[in-house]
Amino acid sequence: MAKIQPGNSATKKEAIIQKAASLFKVKSYTAASMRELAEMLGVEASSLYNHIGSKSELLQAICFKVAKEVAVNLDLIESNATSNISKIEAIIRFHIRIMLYNFDEVYVANHEWKHLKEPYLSDFLNFRRSYEKKLIMLIESGIANNELKIINPYVATLTILSAVRGLEFYHGHKKNVLQEVLENDMINHLLTGLAK
Amino acid sequence: MAKIQPGNSATKKEAIIQKAASLFKVKSYTAASMRELAEMLGVEASSLYNHIGSKSELLQAICFKVAKEVAVNLDLIESNATSNISKIEAIIRFHIRIMLYNFDEVYVANHEWKHLKEPYLSDFLNFRRSYEKKLIMLIESGIANNELKIINPYVATLTILSAVRGLEFYHGHKKNVLQEVLENDMINHLLTGLAK
Repeated sequence: MAKIQPGNSATKKEAIIQKAASLFKVKSYTAASMRELAEMLGVEASSLYNHIGSKSELLQAICFKVAKEVAVNLDLIESNATSNISKIEAIIRFHIRIMLYNFDEVYVANHEWKHLKEPYLSDFLNFRRSYEKKLIMLIESGIANNELKIINPYVATLTILSAVRGLEFYHGHKKNVLQEVLENDMINHLLTGLAK
Repeated sequence: MAKIQPGNSATKKEAIIQKAASLFKVKSYTAASMRELAEMLGVEASSLYNHIGSKSELLQAICFKVAKEVAVNLDLIESNATSNISKIEAIIRFHIRIMLYNFDEVYVANHEWKHLKEPYLSDFLNFRRSYEKKLIMLIESGIANNELKIINPYVATLTILSAVRGLEFYHGHKKNVLQEVLENDMINHLLTGLAK
């Protein structure tokens, strides 16, 4: 059987994680087996265990990879964008893009995190709560600066995060909508509304 | 053991359906058993089968009850509301309310429909597609009437339906947000946006 893929140990592990995300999305974490993953990669199961300790370790790797991307993006936006509204726009755009271009991993982090083992489960939930709190504070700050309408910041955060999360249905629908249109129209809708 | 509840056969069946929705939401349709449902209702499993044929029949009953409520509401709005924007507002309000006040059944219809058997599965998917199409047409009509901004109607529909669906997280969060504030602020956000 073939090797996992050429390259160093880090790129091999990354290839395994990507394939695992694809498998967990289709079959669910619970139903997926390491044997199936090995088959998808075209390697022996024993070869897989040279790179990764367990199925649970793969789920951790996927969830925390996504969490790290989300956190790094927020730091980048906080240090670059000027107004609160441009920060919110950049955050929505980032979430739309990871839903479009990194869908398998984000889907698994969104749906399968509950199977994480402790302490990873608590760490992941703490990360999510803390991220949500930062978005709420950003919206509060935008209201205080008179950039945003008066709105309950929790409700606005929930609406934004739910809208971008709902892009998982876009993958199933496969409408004839360009990804650029999807991105810009969803951002405009969430920032400026539907009504004329 | 006690009877299912006093009243006629229709109200008994309704009580069973509500309890089944609560059970399927907590345990998932696949993991839930008729024995557990009977225990929750305080009756013998055999008594349950006087009212309902199978677990699968319960899932059908839940999914199509929700679908019917959604369809009846749209007909009502179509025949009462005047402008397209007031129709869209009424539709969003309806979806928020069923997420708040009829959560168990809507949650099961949203998450467990994939376990429906044919021909119910196809019927349910056809209903969803047709409902989504009607919302898209409503938004198209609002754009044509100059009531709404120019936006891809599919993207706007996806944003609205995803936002209201995301209220399932509100139940988990239990933030100190009045349901009235939640309802009005989410509607305002989706209709008029965040930005001043």
